[in-house]
Parts: sequence; C-alpha cells; structure tokens
Amino acid sequence: MPVRVTVWGENVHEHTNEIVGKLYPDGMHACIAAGLNEDPEIQAGSCVLQDPEHGLTAERLAQTDVLIWWGHCAHGEVADEIVDRVQERVLQGMGLLVLHSGHYAKIFKRLMGTTCSLTWREAGEMERLWVTNPGHPIVQGIDKYIELPHTEMYGEPFAVPNPDEVIFISNFAGGEVFRSGLVYRRGNGKIFYFRPGHETYPIYYDANIKRVLKNAVKWAQPEGSSWIDDCPEIPVEKAPNKIVSQGEGLHKPGEGGFK
Amino acid sequence: MPVRVTVWGENVHEHTNEIVGKLYPDGMHACIAAGLNEDPEIQAGSCVLQDPEHGLTAERLAQTDVLIWWGHCAHGEVADEIVDRVQERVLQGMGLLVLHSGHYAKIFKRLMGTTCSLTWREAGEMERLWVTNPGHPIVQGIDKYIELPHTEMYGEPFAVPNPDEVIFISNFAGGEVFRSGLVYRRGNGKIFYFRPGHETYPIYYDANIKRVLKNAVKWAQPEGSSWIDDCPEIPVEKAPNKIVSQGEGLHKPGEGGFK
Amino acid sequence: MPVRVTVWGENVHEHTNEIVGKLYPDGMHACIAAGLNEDPEIQAGSCVLQDPEHGLTAERLAQTDVLIWWGHCAHGEVADEIVDRVQERVLQGMGLLVLHSGHYAKIFKRLMGTTCSLTWREAGEMERLWVTNPGHPIVQGIDKYIELPHTEMYGEPFAVPNPDEVIFISNFAGGEVFRSGLVYRRGNGKIFYFRPGHETYPIYYDANIKRVLKNAVKWAQPEGSSWIDDCPEIPVEKAPNKIVSQGEGLHKPGEGGFK
Amino acid sequence: MPVRVTVWGENVHEHTNEIVGKLYPDGMHACIAAGLNEDPEIQAGSCVLQDPEHGLTAERLAQTDVLIWWGHCAHGEVADEIVDRVQERVLQGMGLLVLHSGHYAKIFKRLMGTTCSLTWREAGEMERLWVTNPGHPIVQGIDKYIELPHTEMYGEPFAVPNPDEVIFISNFAGGEVFRSGLVYRRGNGKIFYFRPGHETYPIYYDANIKRVLKNAVKWAQPEGSSWIDDCPEIPVEKAPNKIVSQGEGLHKPGEGGFK
Repeated sequence: MPVRVTVWGENVHEHTNEIVGKLYPDGMHACIAAGLNEDPEIQAGSCVLQDPEHGLTAERLAQTDVLIWWGHCAHGEVADEIVDRVQERVLQGMGLLVLHSGHYAKIFKRLMGTTCSLTWREAGEMERLWVTNPGHPIVQGIDKYIELPHTEMYGEPFAVPNPDEVIFISNFAGGEVFRSGLVYRRGNGKIFYFRPGHETYPIYYDANIKRVLKNAVKWAQPEGSSWIDDCPEIPVEKAPNKIVSQGEGLHKPGEGGFK
Repeated sequence: MPVRVTVWGENVHEHTNEIVGKLYPDGMHACIAAGLNEDPEIQAGSCVLQDPEHGLTAERLAQTDVLIWWGHCAHGEVADEIVDRVQERVLQGMGLLVLHSGHYAKIFKRLMGTTCSLTWREAGEMERLWVTNPGHPIVQGIDKYIELPHTEMYGEPFAVPNPDEVIFISNFAGGEVFRSGLVYRRGNGKIFYFRPGHETYPIYYDANIKRVLKNAVKWAQPEGSSWIDDCPEIPVEKAPNKIVSQGEGLHKPGEGGFK
Repeated sequence: MPVRVTVWGENVHEHTNEIVGKLYPDGMHACIAAGLNEDPEIQAGSCVLQDPEHGLTAERLAQTDVLIWWGHCAHGEVADEIVDRVQERVLQGMGLLVLHSGHYAKIFKRLMGTTCSLTWREAGEMERLWVTNPGHPIVQGIDKYIELPHTEMYGEPFAVPNPDEVIFISNFAGGEVFRSGLVYRRGNGKIFYFRPGHETYPIYYDANIKRVLKNAVKWAQPEGSSWIDDCPEIPVEKAPNKIVSQGEGLHKPGEGGFK
Repeated sequence: MPVRVTVWGENVHEHTNEIVGKLYPDGMHACIAAGLNEDPEIQAGSCVLQDPEHGLTAERLAQTDVLIWWGHCAHGEVADEIVDRVQERVLQGMGLLVLHSGHYAKIFKRLMGTTCSLTWREAGEMERLWVTNPGHPIVQGIDKYIELPHTEMYGEPFAVPNPDEVIFISNFAGGEVFRSGLVYRRGNGKIFYFRPGHETYPIYYDANIKRVLKNAVKWAQPEGSSWIDDCPEIPVEKAPNKIVSQGEGLHKPGEGGFK
C-alpha cells in the first residue's frame, strides 16, 4: 500500500516574488509532491491555502497518511477550524512533516505548546546538516552530512520542547548552529520538523533533501489504529469492580461531563 | 524569599451547587491558598474567573512565581488573550500547577498540544495515590500512598503527551487506574498536573493533599532567569564568522521576518 | 519477510519446581516461541542459559530481529561477555522484549542504568492491565484491559528511568499499581518491558498475552540500518572546513584515541 | 548550606605529559576545585584515581552533593566496585558532572546504557558553544555563546540516549557540530555532561567555563530526599486491600526474592 501524502503549501510567494515564481513555477508544494512521487511506494498530492477549506477537507484528511506543511508569511490566514481538524488527525495517527518556516505555523505551535522562535538571517550562506544518528530510518541513503550551498540561516535558541530525537544538527557559514531535524510524538502522530526550505533557493530539487523527505514520509505513516479519543463517563454498573455510589455529586445519572 | 503563588479558581460551582458552597464557603481557590499559607515560605493569594482580566493582569502574573489553576465547567469562558498571557509567563519560567478538572483548561491543552481527555465516574469512590518516586521533592513527607475516601474517578487512557516524570499513579475502588501526578517542562516553566480535587469532596482540606501542594509550589518555582524569547534577525555584520551576503532573498535589509 | 525472533529462557525453575515443570514441560521459552509462531509473519526459535554461550552466539544474534528475555533466579550466571554482545546488537537496532522478572536481568539493568527494583508479593492475586493508549501498535486487538486471574504482584516504585511511553498500567487485587508495559529506545534498538509472567501461572498461554507479544515483536523489529558506531578520529585533511593544526596535543598523528 | 563538591581526577597526563604538567601543576582536578571555590556557596575538594578506593570512600560519597568526573586514558583502571558505589549515590540524588573525555568513563556509560562514542580530532581548533536555552540555570551569566580558541574537536554522532535537555551545541572551525551540554536524570540524580576540557589547553581557567561549572554544581545538587531503593516483598497481611493467598508459588513465606 503506497503511503498517501498531502503536501500543503501556502502558495503566496510563488506569485508575489519573481525569483520564487521562476524557481517553483507550479508552486513549492507541487515540486515537493513531484519529488515524493519518484518513489512508487508514495502517492503524493498537494493543496493550497487558497483552496476551499485550504484543501484540507475532512475527507481528504481521512485519506492522508502523512501531511507535509509549508507556510511562511500567511500563517495567520489558516482558519483555526482547519487547524483543529489537522490536529485531530495527527493525534489519531496521521504523520506530520513541518518544513522550514512552518516552525511558526499554527499547527506546529499548537502541537508544541511553545513559541517555536529562533534566530535567522537571509544571506544565502552555506549550511551543513550533520546526521546525528546514522541508523535512523529518516537518514538512510544520506552520508555524514548534507551540504546546501545557499540557505537562509536559522540559529539557536530554537524555542521548542525537548524533542524525542534529534536527527540533524546544522551549522552555517556565518557560525550559527541549529537542531535542523527533530522528532516528536503527539497522541499517535509522528511529527518531523525539517529545517531546510527557503523559497528563493532550489532546495526542494536537491537529491539529498528529496531522499530525506521520502524516508520521513515512510517513517511517519500511521501504525497501530486510528484511535479517536473522547471523555466517556464509565457508570457504576460498568466499573470492573463492584462498587456502590456514595457521597455527593455534581452530575445527575447520565448527565454528560463538562468540557 | 517566599514563593509567590496565585491560585486561580473558576468560582462557579461554589455558587451554583449547595454542597460545594457549604464545603468551600470562600471558594476552593481561597481554601487552597489558605492551606499554602500555613507554610511561611509561601505567600499565596487568589483570584477568580469573574475578576477583570480574570484577575490575571500582566502585573499580577509578573509577580507570580507559581500559578495554580482550578477550573471545571467554564473553561470556555477564559479569554484567549489571558491564556496567551499565562502561556507566555510559563514559557518564561513561571511554574504551573493544574488541578483535577483543569486537564481540560485552555492553558493546559495549550501547553500539551493534545486533547487531554480521560474516562470518569462520579460515585464517591475511594482513591489511592501511589508514590512512584519516594525521593522526589513533591512527595516529601508523604507515605507510600495517599488515601482519599471519596473522589471522582479519572481513568486511563489519559490523552496527554508522555510526561517527563510520573509522580503518582492512582487506583480506584471501581478498578480504574490513572497517572495522577505528572511533570512536564515547557520553555523554562515547570508544570505539575495533580488529579485530586472534585468540588463536592473536602479534598483540599486533606493534610496530605496540602503537603503535596506546598512541596509542588516550591519545586515549581522559577530557577535561572526569565528569558523572553523572540525571533531576531542576526544581520551579516553580526554573524560570528565573516560572511558576505549572496544569492537571492525575500527580505530587504532591516525588514522584519514573517510571523 | 517474517520477523526473526529468539526467545531466551533461563530454564531453571522448569527443572527445579514441579509446578513450573508441569505448566511448561518444554520450558517457558518454548511456550512463548510456540505462541509467536502461530503468526505466519513471525519466525521464533529459542535458546537457554545452559547452551554454549547461552545460545546467543554472534551468528545467532546477527540473524535475530527481536530478542525476548526471560530470567529470574539466575541473572548472575549470564556471562558479562554475552551481555556485552546483546547490548551491542540492541544499540545496532535489534529489538528487545524483557519479560516479568527480567527487570533484574543484567541486560535490562545495563540498558537502563538504574536498579530496576520494585515491590512484590506472591499471592496469586488478580491483575488488571489497563491500556493507556488504545492506538498503539502493541495493543491492537486488546480491549480496555487484560485480566489475569492469578499473578505475582509487582508494585511501584519501579526504579527505572522515565519511559518514552507507558503502554499498560496494572492494578492488583491487593491494591498495588505498576507501570506494566514500558517502551524505551537505546541506540537504534526498541525495548519493551512487559510485566506479566510468573512461572507458576499459565500466563504465556493466555490469548491476550500472546497477542501482545506478537504485536510487540512486530513493533520492535529493526528499521533503518544496522549502524555500528565507533570512535573515529577525523584527521585535519578530512575536516569539511580547511583548517591547520595548532596548539599542543596529546596524540601523535595517526595514534588512536583512548577508550 | 554550601554545595559540597568532590572533583575526581584521573591524574595521569599531568604526570606523563610535559605540557599538561605545566598547565595544571596541581592537577586538573585541583584547578577545577579551585575555580569552584571562588564561589562562597560551593565547598569543593578533590581526589584522584591513585588514592585508596580512588578517594571515593563510602564516607566521602555520603558527604558529596555533586561529583565531578574527569578521566581520559585510564577509565579501565577505575574499580567496578567504586563505580557501583558512585552509581548508587547518583540514583539516590547525588549530582554528577561528567567532563570531556569522561564520555567514556565507566560511570557515564553505566548510567547511559549506550557506547557514548563520538568523532574527534586533536588540532587545536576554535570551538563555539552556543547556548540553546538562555533561561536555564546552567547558563546564567553566559552570553549567546562561549568561544574557546583551542580545543580538541568532538563531533556527532554522539552515541548517547536522547537527553532530557540540550544546553549547549558546539561547532568547530573544522566544520563539525556536537551537543556539548546535555542533561539527564537517573533515579533522583541530575547528570550534566559538559564537553570542553582537553588536557593540553587551559580550558579550566576560562572564566566562562568556570561560571558554567559553578552554575551546574548548584543546579545538580540533590533536592527531595535520599531514597535508597530495594526490592521489598509486601506480604499478604500488609496489602492495602484484604486478600487471601491463592494459587501456586515459588517462594515460601518470608523467603526473599531473587535478584
């Protein structure tokens, strides 16, 4: 069964910035999806901010194993209702890859609970992403490090919770360092934050970057089952041990809980 | 220096439910604060949902080392703007104790990124909170377990991220179990979720519960410094290594980043 | 490709205790392997303490995807050299399931770094293993909880490092609780500690227990690649950036590092 | 109450290598202790490998709040019995700072459960230790980064378990990166691994390094109580719930458990 991927793109700079428009004529989202589709085990499509419901209908999300998120200047335009929907699917097991400036995406901040801030510089400097765990599925086929000749620098402090794993650490020509590949788990969803990706550089055409995304998509796919949690009352008669209700209560029998 | 504590209470059931009103005539928040103030090293005050800005003004929060949160039926009435403010302070180092039904409080869900759901039953059954780490500061002065004769049951699954530490695990007369004392860290804020606390039982008068809260407040106080993070651009001339700007860019010199 | 499992058993009580001998005539290890082999996706064999090299030759371990460890009264008789070998394979990616009294096995203590102690009682009491995450691969096909009519109680405090995930929490008729299903990662090896299993009860014939072991074995199999780490010197000429050796040194060129 | 620190030094290179002997005439251990003693809140002494019991008598360890470990070429000469003793104290709450080549010390590998390997180069290159969390107690008084003009490079992959927190990330002139300040918790002991420290450079005289060590020692001191865990049997009559022993058993009443 191929891994079903949806690549979500903000699709703004492709139309407002000439350089980006030339680099990614069909949009970064389509470029990323095309790269993934080189792999027969992956089936990737894309959608954009401007689509109805940002393209992330309940139906589409239900059929998405892994969602890839790219956003930059329009994070605030993503409807909270759609963010709720995406968060729910991640907690149920849908994988999530957050790319580059997506560190400030509502969905990432929602799942992290922190500001996700960092330092940055747009000077086209060289980045070296060092692999911190050569045995990890995400880095298979990657050498000791990936070199990207021109990138936008991101530097520590990166205000995220301590990750479950660090996959890459980058250093930049200007001197800064950054944890550029991070793994988290929220609910049953696997999350991979991957730093490279500035719009004005051809990063998503890079063979190593494409390889990492293919690996990450396969790594992030759901395992187990899609458990949908709720907050059920377990009445006295359903308690595993025999008990009798005692003491005072707020709720009448059968009355729902507060949320 | 005494630890400065603010106890935030929803203050609804104290006025709408006769039992609660009798048990906690000054409100649960005042009862909890009074318990804490038995300890000369703690200086606790309280405020409620109905206060202007829910009592959580920028000034008050700036002078709060540890915030204790109790809410149940009115989570939705807490203004998002206030939640933002509290989250910011936690990330800066303010400690946060979340009690009982506060598992569904906006601030807790905000910091956790998950639904925080659980199972429950209001049958006044006995709870035994077992200590999983006798050496931990939070459990000093507590025996192998705390017994509470009448409680509202909370049961697993508890849909929270894996905690940094589990301090208590409870079992209930009806048979369920629950991780009833959990530690998290978000930014530089220490968070302690502590389960006991249903309004219709005198739990906050219990000597062991009061002891745990005193310990937890001292454990959760800020250490280090109050770092306020932002997302600064580090211009080329400030880079530690000498570099020259190259390649294309989105931002003009001095233009701020996107958020 | 079937998951290749080796079940290691201490094989002592089967021969020294009449009850155990009757319950497990071929040994617990063989019973566990037989249970796993009901699943065509698993290929399980077993070996015992008394075998040459405890059956854990380099060759066997190289062909083992997941090792299951059962030991109780003879932990000290496991040769340190074999423990080294097993640890190495786990760090390289071999999965490890540690069962019941294996909490005191050398390999488990080696990977945990703590004492792994607990409280216990042999009174044949009922145990209920509650599922804390219904979406997890390990608990697929399992209901809200597993009930075992007769077990040996294990109780908190369980002196292990905070697990990456808690899969089961048990409570016992006598009142105690215990984190009975724990997940860790060491190197690229997935580790699952699973509590049930006292020799004098037919626990490994239980359908739910067999289901959990099948799930766990598939979950624990290696992913990524078998990275064998060492401590290589990266000479000046191999540094990614051009540098010149300066300052004083301990090592002559080409001389190995200290270990 | 001043924090009582014991600095343990291998004390070999100071006597076998001329450069080291000149840099650290009283030994690195004494230099580190002297630096700590600049702070009236710290009371530091030192001992060496060559002392009876390596200086780490039960008495000394009982009076040590934080142990600092420096070793390089003689890790194998540390008696296992002493390592047992140190591990026990850490689990009980004694803090542990492991410096530089101590990544291969028996005690660090014992607590980590992994190989703790890395890459390295002795070329006297510049190191920049970036602070990843400016609010953390360990980095108070430190700027955005610490620069050390001449160091021995350590590079990723660093084969340690995922840390609880990353405090520093370094990059080196040669291009490598390394997580150079890591926090772990084992039992109730706080552990801080801190990378800088090669014998042939005056690193322990550096004002920033001394500041970090002072901060770290205060951060690592025990909190809570010194819980000494064991593996007690809880007999039927001591069970919180009333139960009757049933089923078959291995142990006769009062007979101890297996270890």
